[in-house]
Amino acid sequence: MQLGFVGLGKMGANMTQRLLNGGHNLVVTDRSDAAVRKSASAGATGVSSTRELIGKLKAPRVVWVMVPAGDPTESTIRSLSEDLSAGDIIVDGGNAHYRDSIRRADMLKQNGIHFVDVGTSGGVWGLKEGYSLMVGGDAEVVGRLRPILETLAPAKDRGWGRVGPCGSGHFVKMIHNGIEYGMMQAYAEGFAILQAKKDFDLNLPGIAEIWRHGSVVRSWLLDLTAEALSGDPNLGRVKPWVEDSGEGRWTVMEAIDLNVSAPVITESLIRRLRSREEDSFADKMLAAMRNAFGGHAVKTE
Amino acid sequence: MQLGFVGLGKMGANMTQRLLNGGHNLVVTDRSDAAVRKSASAGATGVSSTRELIGKLKAPRVVWVMVPAGDPTESTIRSLSEDLSAGDIIVDGGNAHYRDSIRRADMLKQNGIHFVDVGTSGGVWGLKEGYSLMVGGDAEVVGRLRPILETLAPAKDRGWGRVGPCGSGHFVKMIHNGIEYGMMQAYAEGFAILQAKKDFDLNLPGIAEIWRHGSVVRSWLLDLTAEALSGDPNLGRVKPWVEDSGEGRWTVMEAIDLNVSAPVITESLIRRLRSREEDSFADKMLAAMRNAFGGHAVKTE
Repeated sequence: MQLGFVGLGKMGANMTQRLLNGGHNLVVTDRSDAAVRKSASAGATGVSSTRELIGKLKAPRVVWVMVPAGDPTESTIRSLSEDLSAGDIIVDGGNAHYRDSIRRADMLKQNGIHFVDVGTSGGVWGLKEGYSLMVGGDAEVVGRLRPILETLAPAKDRGWGRVGPCGSGHFVKMIHNGIEYGMMQAYAEGFAILQAKKDFDLNLPGIAEIWRHGSVVRSWLLDLTAEALSGDPNLGRVKPWVEDSGEGRWTVMEAIDLNVSAPVITESLIRRLRSREEDSFADKMLAAMRNAFGGHAVKTE
Repeated sequence: MQLGFVGLGKMGANMTQRLLNGGHNLVVTDRSDAAVRKSASAGATGVSSTRELIGKLKAPRVVWVMVPAGDPTESTIRSLSEDLSAGDIIVDGGNAHYRDSIRRADMLKQNGIHFVDVGTSGGVWGLKEGYSLMVGGDAEVVGRLRPILETLAPAKDRGWGRVGPCGSGHFVKMIHNGIEYGMMQAYAEGFAILQAKKDFDLNLPGIAEIWRHGSVVRSWLLDLTAEALSGDPNLGRVKPWVEDSGEGRWTVMEAIDLNVSAPVITESLIRRLRSREEDSFADKMLAAMRNAFGGHAVKTE
């Protein structure tokens, strides 16, 4: 089907490629002219603005937005809303906070424009393996997107589904990412203990490879972990600095809002914060207090 | 090849079945006569004692022990060691503490008996899908077990490997289980938040099913989780009481011994302890202290 697509970054470029491979008719735009040219050479119609993009689409239109959460998503949806008409659909496939998605759905509704939030998981592997798609929106509107969702998913009948009303797609994706934080931290800690056990001189890539087959901890994350370790068994090329992109902290805040204790997801976020504290004031405080009450030595700069 | 097998519980029964299916020649025993009869009817030679079992094996013998960690393993290995000869091999496929395995290897070595510890993962699914096998022992001795390991593993060249000297197989399996605790807790918390979000009326089995395909959190544990939820979406039939069988707490103690911070694995263990505290004294203490300093109400029995 015909689809407008705004945002050709790491995720968007692969998704449009998968849609083109699936025979869809795409009109695309991006801040980067080079990204638009690349997509055009792969078969999309490239344009230089959202206004131009909307002009190329037949009503009722569908425009998929795949830009970073926050201001880029807000301004993209606002510009689109100025030119779209009643009956058109905006899909936000990014990682917006679900409350923003509910607000945007309400805003767009005033002009009869439909909104669908699609939590999209799969990373850079999605082009080949397909994306897991958690869809929030009115059932009838989501139904109109079916051909696109079936192409983006790993298979027509697998890995995608409407999970509830507007906002619920991004909510479920947020929790997905919270779980991801916890799983990653669990693997990271386990391998750190293996690495510290010098007596056994363990081969970490070999162990990851054994676990990939038949073990209870086998997973796609472990597949990727095994690959990362096989190229660099001691991770000598990686700094112990871990970013967080929002969804983890939102999950923690939501858990607190709902009075659900989620200590492992919370701790996984906290560990990422700690990884970025190069000169921990809290640790200085602890050392100073031990010195104060017990005369324990402090290391000085 | 010919193999003695002691212990036909949940794991042992399936493993012997997989070995019989693979064409191996098994002499088996168990505390339970019924279990021995069942295995015999499947093609094994059933006997009623370890002494009788050893009598049926041609030297150099291999005996696989698959009984609960602790006293059952200790007493089984001690009885076997009385009747085995130099050059024979005892394999412990259970969940012994790796320090016990090192001690047993040293003890057996005095009589020239070899010891191999095999961390075995796969649960009740191993019969069909194969087991992930983490093997500790002398390379030459492990090499003699190759035909058995190749049959038990998911494939000849996958899911098994020698990870190091005696003790290392159980060490790696212990860490595997620690990771498992963390992964399980991460999923559990995520689904608990989804379940608490009443606004969206989310369908948990449906979400698990979406995530199984293409998402970053896809895993074998998630496959099992999806199945458990589909039969009982609100887990109405399950009590919130979680046992721990030792490996999680050993992982935490090992992490502390090695000065490795493993907060998520630790917290996952702590949560299991908490799940079994029906009348938390710590929570009573907190309520009493809030009452003492702030006059906050306490709930009384």
